[in-house]
Amino acid sequence: MVIDYKKELEQAAKTMILVHEPDTLIKMIARTIVQKVKVSHAGILLYNKEKNTYILTVSRGEPGLKIPAGFARMDLDNPLIQFFKERYDKRLLGDGVLVYEEAKKILKRQAIGEGIPELKKALYQLEIFGAAVCIPAYYRQELMGLLLLGNKKRGRFRREELDFFIALTSDVTMAIKNAQLFHELELELEKKHRLFIHTTIALATAIDAKDHYTHGHTARVTNLSLEIAKKLSQKYKKNLDEKFLEALHIASLLHDIGKIGIPESILNKEGPLNEEETKKMRQHPHLGAVILQPIPELKEAILGVKYHHERYDGSGYPEGLKAEAIPLIAAIISVADTFDALTTQRPYRAALSKEEAIEEIKRASGSQFDPEISQAIIDLYKEGKI
Amino acid sequence: MVIDYKKELEQAAKTMILVHEPDTLIKMIARTIVQKVKVSHAGILLYNKEKNTYILTVSRGEPGLKIPAGFARMDLDNPLIQFFKERYDKRLLGDGVLVYEEAKKILKRQAIGEGIPELKKALYQLEIFGAAVCIPAYYRQELMGLLLLGNKKRGRFRREELDFFIALTSDVTMAIKNAQLFHELELELEKKHRLFIHTTIALATAIDAKDHYTHGHTARVTNLSLEIAKKLSQKYKKNLDEKFLEALHIASLLHDIGKIGIPESILNKEGPLNEEETKKMRQHPHLGAVILQPIPELKEAILGVKYHHERYDGSGYPEGLKAEAIPLIAAIISVADTFDALTTQRPYRAALSKEEAIEEIKRASGSQFDPEISQAIIDLYKEGKI
Repeated sequence: MVIDYKKELEQAAKTMILVHEPDTLIKMIARTIVQKVKVSHAGILLYNKEKNTYILTVSRGEPGLKIPAGFARMDLDNPLIQFFKERYDKRLLGDGVLVYEEAKKILKRQAIGEGIPELKKALYQLEIFGAAVCIPAYYRQELMGLLLLGNKKRGRFRREELDFFIALTSDVTMAIKNAQLFHELELELEKKHRLFIHTTIALATAIDAKDHYTHGHTARVTNLSLEIAKKLSQKYKKNLDEKFLEALHIASLLHDIGKIGIPESILNKEGPLNEEETKKMRQHPHLGAVILQPIPELKEAILGVKYHHERYDGSGYPEGLKAEAIPLIAAIISVADTFDALTTQRPYRAALSKEEAIEEIKRASGSQFDPEISQAIIDLYKEGKI
Repeated sequence: MVIDYKKELEQAAKTMILVHEPDTLIKMIARTIVQKVKVSHAGILLYNKEKNTYILTVSRGEPGLKIPAGFARMDLDNPLIQFFKERYDKRLLGDGVLVYEEAKKILKRQAIGEGIPELKKALYQLEIFGAAVCIPAYYRQELMGLLLLGNKKRGRFRREELDFFIALTSDVTMAIKNAQLFHELELELEKKHRLFIHTTIALATAIDAKDHYTHGHTARVTNLSLEIAKKLSQKYKKNLDEKFLEALHIASLLHDIGKIGIPESILNKEGPLNEEETKKMRQHPHLGAVILQPIPELKEAILGVKYHHERYDGSGYPEGLKAEAIPLIAAIISVADTFDALTTQRPYRAALSKEEAIEEIKRASGSQFDPEISQAIIDLYKEGKI
C-alpha cells in the first residue's frame, strides 16, 4: 500500500532534477498525494524571490476542502511562515514537521512557555487551511516552501508516511532550487548575448554614420540577409543552423567595419572616385577582416566581411573567388548589400525603386550573384516581404 | 546495519544535485561503499564525451584488490561496455545488474544461445577486475557509467542491497548529467562574455587607429583604470564589486568611442586646435554616450564615457560636474586617460617620463583630479606597478 505511491513519487522527484522546469511535476506530486495516499487535499507554497512572498503554487483536492485561491499567498509576517522561519521546530517539534494533533497535545500539557504563543498562532493557520500536517522545506537555512496536507480519508498519518513526505519535500526543494539556478544561468546567458549584439549594433551604427550616404544601411542589410537565409532554408532546404544564422547576423552588422580605415575624403566624396581612390575604397573588406581577425569565435563571420564584394563570375575583390568558392555567408551579404545600395540615393545617382533594383539583380544573376540567392531575394520581393 | 550506510549515501546523492561538481562526492560514495558495506573494492567508470571512452574516475579498496590505474579506461569495444550498451540485460538479466555468481549459473544451464558469447566475454572482464557485481547507469538510453563492486568481506550481496545500489547509481548518474549540463551552460556563458569583450576591443582598437597620435591608448587606459580600481578597493576599502569592475572595463575600452563623430581633420591636426575645433573635439564624451545610450545594460559604463573629461573643481566638460558629483567610474578613467596622454608623444609636445607625469597628477590633485584617485595612481607608481 505504502510502497505503491512511494515509488511513483520518488521517481517523480528524481525526474525533476533534469527537467529544470519543475512546475508540472510539482502538480503531479500534489495530485498523486491526494489520489494515492487518499488525503483530502494537498497544497504547496513556494517562496518567490522577486515578490518576497510564499505563493500557493499547487492546490489539489475536492472543492470546499482544498485551499481556496483566495489564500494564494503568504507574506513573511504570516504566523505559519514566521514559525518555520524562526525554526521553533528544534524546541517544540523533534523532526521539524508540524502535526496538528500532536501540537494540540503539547499545548494541553504546556499552556505557557517560550514559543507557545507562536505555536498557537501557527496552529490557527492550519485550522484555516484545514491542514493536518505542515512540512517545511529548507535550502541552506532558508525556508523554500511548505507542504500542507489535509486529513487522510481513513485513519491517521503513520510515522513512516511522515518520514517519507519529509524526504520527498526535501527532494522537491532541491530540484526546484536546481531549476532556479539553471534558469538564472540561462537568463544571464541571454542577457550577455543581447549585450553583445546591442553593443555591436551601436558601434556598427556609429561607423555607418561616418559614411554620409549610407544612413541605416547596416540595419537594412542585416534584416535582408537574415530574410534571404530563411528563404534559402525553406526553398532550397539548405541546412542553415543556429550557428550559421548567428554568424550571418554578426557579419551583416560588421560587413562595412573596414570603412573605418578609409579616409573621410574618399568616403564622402561627391562624384565618382578616381583610380587611386577606388583602390583605397576596395580595401575595406580586407581591413574589416583584419580588425576582427583576433577573435577566434568570429571565424565564420569574418568570411562574410572579407568576401562580400566577391562576384559569382570571379571578377570581384579582394581575391577574385568564383561561384562555390565564395563562402555562402558572403554571397548572401553581397546580394543584400547591393539591393540596399541600389535602392538608396548616392551622390552620383538617384535611388532605384525596389522593382528596378530586383530587375537589376535578376540581370546580374549568374554573373555578379549566385543564382539561388538572387532567386531567393526575387521570391521575397514577390511575396511582399521586402 | 543496512540503514546505517543507506542514509549517508542517499544524502550524498541528493547533495550532489546542487554541488554541480560531483567528483568529490563520487569519491566519497565509493569510499563509503568500501568502508560501510565492507566491500573489498569499488570502482566507478564514467563516460567521457570528448574522448568517447569510459574512464575509471574512482577506485577504492585495498591495494592488490582495487582496480589498478592500468585499467584507467575502457573503450567502446570493451566487451563489458558492449554488453551494457546493447542492453543484453533485458534477456539475460531481469533488473539490468550483472552479478557474477548468478551469471555463472545461467551459463551452466545454457551453454549456447543468443547473447551467451557476449555474456561470457563480459564475465571475463569482471574476473579481470575482481568484481562481483556490475551496475550500469543509463541516461535516456545512453550508457553513462558503470559501478563495479568487489566481493563483500562477509556473506553475499542481498537482493535488498543490490536494489539500493541500483537506485543509488541512478541518482548519481542524474546528478552527474545535471552537473554536465550546468557546466556546459557556464562554458557557453564564459564564451559569450569573451566574445563580447573581444569584439568590443577589436572595434575600439579600430576607432583608436583613426586618431594617429593615440596608438594603443585604449588598451593602456583600460589596464590602468582596472589597476587603480584594485588599489582603491584595497586601500580605501571601497566596495567595488564585480559589476562595477565590468562596467569600468567596458567604459575604459569605449571612453573615446565618440571620436568616431569628430572629423579626421581635427583628430589628426598637427599643432594646437583653434576655438571652433576645440569645441568640436570636446563633444566626443557626449557623442560616445549618445552612441551607447540605446543599450540599457551599459548604463553605468555610459557614465564613465560621458564624464571622463569632468574635473574635480567643476571646470571640466560636458557638464562641469564637481567633486563627488562626478561618477567614480568617470573619475578613475579621467586619471588613467591623462596619465597615458602625458606619457605619449603628441604633435605639439614631447612625451613626459612616468615620473614627470606622476608629478603633474600630484599637482593637479584636488583641482583636476579626485585626491583619493590621484593617490591611488601615485601608490601604483611607487610600487612599480605602472
